[in-house]
Amino acid sequence: MTQQNNRVTAGMIVIGDEILSGRTKDVNIGAVADFCTDLGIDLIEVRVVSDEMDAIVEAVNALRARCTYVFTSGGIGPTHDDITADAIATAFGVALPINAQARAMLEARWQQTGTEVNEARLRMARIPEGADLIVNSVSAAPGFRIGNVHVMAGVPIIMRAMLEALAPTLQGGRKVLSRTVKAAVGEGTVGGPLGELQAQYPDVKMGSYPQMGRDRVMTELVLRSADEARLEEATAKVRAMVDAAHAKAGVTPPED
Amino acid sequence: MTQQNNRVTAGMIVIGDEILSGRTKDVNIGAVADFCTDLGIDLIEVRVVSDEMDAIVEAVNALRARCTYVFTSGGIGPTHDDITADAIATAFGVALPINAQARAMLEARWQQTGTEVNEARLRMARIPEGADLIVNSVSAAPGFRIGNVHVMAGVPIIMRAMLEALAPTLQGGRKVLSRTVKAAVGEGTVGGPLGELQAQYPDVKMGSYPQMGRDRVMTELVLRSADEARLEEATAKVRAMVDAAHAKAGVTPPED
Repeated sequence: MTQQNNRVTAGMIVIGDEILSGRTKDVNIGAVADFCTDLGIDLIEVRVVSDEMDAIVEAVNALRARCTYVFTSGGIGPTHDDITADAIATAFGVALPINAQARAMLEARWQQTGTEVNEARLRMARIPEGADLIVNSVSAAPGFRIGNVHVMAGVPIIMRAMLEALAPTLQGGRKVLSRTVKAAVGEGTVGGPLGELQAQYPDVKMGSYPQMGRDRVMTELVLRSADEARLEEATAKVRAMVDAAHAKAGVTPPED
Repeated sequence: MTQQNNRVTAGMIVIGDEILSGRTKDVNIGAVADFCTDLGIDLIEVRVVSDEMDAIVEAVNALRARCTYVFTSGGIGPTHDDITADAIATAFGVALPINAQARAMLEARWQQTGTEVNEARLRMARIPEGADLIVNSVSAAPGFRIGNVHVMAGVPIIMRAMLEALAPTLQGGRKVLSRTVKAAVGEGTVGGPLGELQAQYPDVKMGSYPQMGRDRVMTELVLRSADEARLEEATAKVRAMVDAAHAKAGVTPPED
């Protein structure tokens, strides 16, 4: 399913015990999801795994086989629990030498800041053989791309900077457009007719999301398609269906 | 790896296109992570998958085989894109009839609220054969447990209510304790000696987390273990190592 009908897909792997313990609340999934949607890339799966070699290698190999692109976040710092580079090298069966370009980037930054060069810090210059670097404008330690896998930092501000750096290297898919129809009736009221409309428009994906605690809006119906004409046609039918439901229930429609 | 040394593990599956598109930002992963940590359950993997039968079935079968417990969130509402119950029934190879108890719970609520009973709403009473219900105190539509898989709503307030309802049915593991040591030096400074201490204390998991934009705290070192005595011993050594790094760098230690 890599590129059916010009479809470009992505998988994401969040690496880190701190997310699985609840100590750190992930925000990178949402950032990568927004990034992919903006580029017309279809994010199809995310996995959060621990800082363990086998767990990372398994997730990388599963997702790189089925997605156009894979993005990882976390585990590329200087300490013993940062093993993402090791796991990627293992997954691709390549060596993990100190990369001269990465070392030069780091040493230039360390010279500016008066930071001592030591073995732990030099871990961050170990890059799998054959990989290209992803520039880190925030703290210098680079990410890297090997094959279709893009390895980024876990610190959100650094991950977002790396996404911006690699965006021009990605091939976007056909942009998926979306329309939202707000309803002042519950999901259970629109569920039946919405299912019938979905069957009529298999190329327009229709989702239904209950809204809690929002004045008068009880359900948001979201339509998504790469075909704008079909999307508008389907949206008009969904809107008419919702208008009829409002009339039948005797409720005022919410403002758009 | 289900229950090595009294270890109780969990996997989580977040089901929903709205998370993968970025339209909705997930908060359920963090809630389940905190819930598991409080009960001494080790959350070992999370997957976010789309509202597609094959994707859900694959994730459920992968995680239920390797974890003591599996928790899912999302896809149990009344609309056509709510297919979690169908996917769970498929994964377990059982039928998906209307469950009399679930129907009674829903009808009691609908009677109170004057809500019409229709086919879409009755979808929420379809429960895989052999499953037990998980009570939903917020909106009545129940979740369910089948085998080691616990199926919950995606709306965060409902999911949290369901977690509370099922907590007494879970067997907690040995509680993992944690200690945090704050350092006013970077990860690269403490990385080498921390790795040596980790090798001396393989039963105490040591993590290192860079802190950005926090006054004087540059790195937090987090130690986790079920053995309190070993944890205290290792924490004292890490603290001494960090104190030495502060002295060498001539910086004031951050307050605890």
